[in-house]
Amino acid sequence: MADSPNCDLKSLSPLQLFERVTEQGEKVRALKAGKAPKDEIDAAVRMLLSLKLSYKSATGQDYQAGLPPRDLVLINNGTTKEEDEDFVDPWTVQTSNAKGVDYDKLIVRFGSSKIDTDLINRIERAIGQKPHRFLRRGIFFSHRDMDQILDAYENKKSFYLYTGRGPSSQAMHVGHLIPFVFTNPLPCTLSPVVSLRIFGPLKNEFVVRLDIIACGFDISKTFIFSDLDYLGTSTGFYKNVVKVQKHVTFNQVKGIFGFTDSDCIGKISFPAIQAAPSFSSSFPQIFNDKDNIQCLIPCAIDQDPYFRMTRDVAPRIGQPKPALLHSVFFPALQGAQTKMSASDPNSSIFLTDTPKQIKTKINKHAFSGGRDTIEEHRKYGGNCDVDVSFMYLTFFLEDDDRLEQLKQAYTSGELLTGELKKVLIETLQPLIAAHQERRKQVTDEMVKQFMTPRKLAFEF
Amino acid sequence: MADSPNCDLKSLSPLQLFERVTEQGEKVRALKAGKAPKDEIDAAVRMLLSLKLSYKSATGQDYQAGLPPRDLVLINNGTTKEEDEDFVDPWTVQTSNAKGVDYDKLIVRFGSSKIDTDLINRIERAIGQKPHRFLRRGIFFSHRDMDQILDAYENKKSFYLYTGRGPSSQAMHVGHLIPFVFTNPLPCTLSPVVSLRIFGPLKNEFVVRLDIIACGFDISKTFIFSDLDYLGTSTGFYKNVVKVQKHVTFNQVKGIFGFTDSDCIGKISFPAIQAAPSFSSSFPQIFNDKDNIQCLIPCAIDQDPYFRMTRDVAPRIGQPKPALLHSVFFPALQGAQTKMSASDPNSSIFLTDTPKQIKTKINKHAFSGGRDTIEEHRKYGGNCDVDVSFMYLTFFLEDDDRLEQLKQAYTSGELLTGELKKVLIETLQPLIAAHQERRKQVTDEMVKQFMTPRKLAFEF
Repeated sequence: MADSPNCDLKSLSPLQLFERVTEQGEKVRALKAGKAPKDEIDAAVRMLLSLKLSYKSATGQDYQAGLPPRDLVLINNGTTKEEDEDFVDPWTVQTSNAKGVDYDKLIVRFGSSKIDTDLINRIERAIGQKPHRFLRRGIFFSHRDMDQILDAYENKKSFYLYTGRGPSSQAMHVGHLIPFVFTNPLPCTLSPVVSLRIFGPLKNEFVVRLDIIACGFDISKTFIFSDLDYLGTSTGFYKNVVKVQKHVTFNQVKGIFGFTDSDCIGKISFPAIQAAPSFSSSFPQIFNDKDNIQCLIPCAIDQDPYFRMTRDVAPRIGQPKPALLHSVFFPALQGAQTKMSASDPNSSIFLTDTPKQIKTKINKHAFSGGRDTIEEHRKYGGNCDVDVSFMYLTFFLEDDDRLEQLKQAYTSGELLTGELKKVLIETLQPLIAAHQERRKQVTDEMVKQFMTPRKLAFEF
Repeated sequence: MADSPNCDLKSLSPLQLFERVTEQGEKVRALKAGKAPKDEIDAAVRMLLSLKLSYKSATGQDYQAGLPPRDLVLINNGTTKEEDEDFVDPWTVQTSNAKGVDYDKLIVRFGSSKIDTDLINRIERAIGQKPHRFLRRGIFFSHRDMDQILDAYENKKSFYLYTGRGPSSQAMHVGHLIPFVFTNPLPCTLSPVVSLRIFGPLKNEFVVRLDIIACGFDISKTFIFSDLDYLGTSTGFYKNVVKVQKHVTFNQVKGIFGFTDSDCIGKISFPAIQAAPSFSSSFPQIFNDKDNIQCLIPCAIDQDPYFRMTRDVAPRIGQPKPALLHSVFFPALQGAQTKMSASDPNSSIFLTDTPKQIKTKINKHAFSGGRDTIEEHRKYGGNCDVDVSFMYLTFFLEDDDRLEQLKQAYTSGELLTGELKKVLIETLQPLIAAHQERRKQVTDEMVKQFMTPRKLAFEF
């Protein structure tokens, strides 16, 4: 399942190399079984050996069938040689670089594809309008099989969006909005299926549903579900969970997610639950029992391991691989070394914050790329690459020209840190106030409707 | 959770010792936290050390918190010293003894309690009639907390039965009938909930349902479900699965079931699915949302590991521990060294067999405890302890006096092997013919009714 089969072996991630070896092994077996000409078999065997060597030199270990490399967890704990490595897995994002994670490296490591100008231009041609600012500005920077989705779109074939939010945090902060702000205004065939993965104490689940609905989704095109509730009401969903669970071993989830023997079996089997919504057969009511509708998953890049696993399993259970769009992480107020986390209130601007709280938090905590004194700042200018206020503006300020002006003014020293923060405050305050206003309009009845499995307004 | 807290430490199984150490450790911590008198703490610590020593001498290993001993898998592969050990786990039953597994040893090893005359007498007093022949004849030989069930019964408090059959085999043989033959005529408050655990190819699932219904269950008191279908339609069930999965680690299932890293995550997380029906909250429709109704599980002893795990988790998720009745294994035609297995047609009498097939199989394959020649047999007599035909008669011949006569006549040599086999053939043929007749009466509508979650005729 290597996504770019013709690229140089050296540029492949350990997991990609692992997959190439596995693929080549299968090819050799098939040739032998089919009694192919000897020289053809010999060539394939030579290729297999060379791939195994590349694998060994990349990982320091011999290839073992069924045992993928643990390529994700590259720990930057000060004791390893690779001190510039970022730590990215579905639970932790950490880098020593104030600019944030090196996303180009991540693309190479994860084996995904960069969203380049060509792709953005193709999207623009396809949808007949300027792509979303998250695409224009590299906030969604990487993809898998986005070309297939565009083929489908151009041929008026349907696909669907699946996104969600995780179980750990209780209140929603502005970073949580990214997938919802992105999926909401996408063209109409891209109706989203939104998952809430809430396994913990459920007291705030309802609040979260309100906040998702308050993003303004079209009720005729959106289904919101909680894994915990929906699984117990959908045989189609559960059957896919079981199918995925049958095709993934503990060795594999250990390799992909770093699970250990002390983890509970719920955690160990959970990846299959996150995988299941990638298949349209999990939503028989929505898709009229069609099981071949492709799924596009916009998510932060740290969720990619779940879907690499899903893409690996998909053909083995007769389902199309989901396509992916990967976003950067939403930085904490204190700087892009970590992502915004609801468990650290000082790092987060919540959707429930008052205008005053927003102002205070930004003024007090937002890491500045400005200089120590006004004089120095005027002379040398600020650094937009590490300035959290500027980063947030790239997420939330729609006007490209205004953003460019701010960047130049700040970099030249013309605009001071306090002034840049003021722009951010004045951008966020009305956005969050409007969200709170819409949230008030969300009734119990609406929540119930959004969460009822039903036929959606697709164009099949 | 040791079931017999006052017994001699030497008689405890490794798992029981493990639990005693864990319990004592918690006691010490509680005493320390509660600032108990020093001498009380010291005594508890001494007890803890002594328990740890006993654990080490029993298992050869140091106690490690959270890491229960692998006490189940005692492999008799000829290379170990304990050549007389039986191998019993949920997938394999194997012994070198023609009399079958040593069930008294199993009681000690599993830490359950023997069903003795006192208990059988108490059951007779409680239900006001002779207990089922499976109880009278030691076919159900071991239990956990059966006294609690009898307390409930005597106080007119409700409980429910949960039994089932596994996923591996496709057709049902007479051995599969044991739990159904046993639960069916039990007193009316003992309404059964019957589970089909069918994860494989589903083509024969419907056939299996027909056979269960053909046992003659009262539709007003019986719910039949398939894990795979029911889980996707019951939030209550799934929430219990998730709760159990949260409280059981891979280390634990590795210890209990011998799972390895190469097992798929579906297998690893499955024990929680087998556990969930032990809790009445998994069946809100049946029990009117009552979550404290105790469950009694009649099953073959090889299923005990699932329910030891369940009993361990139950108090931690605020649910009553299920009680258990353990049966012996139904022997293969070839002898009691293994249990009857549908995957070996020669070892099994199927519910679909014709009278002629039944006769041929018994005459050809049923292992005989008789002598080599008629002369020797007349002189020395046959051995009922290893004779499969006689064993089967203990399962299926209701008349105690007749069974005793047969035993004496066979042992004395008066009754020949062929004659004993004839009695068995003439017992089984009409039983199976009657089953086939009832099976023909089962309509699609009845199957649907049995499998619809609904309020049952309990007396709360």
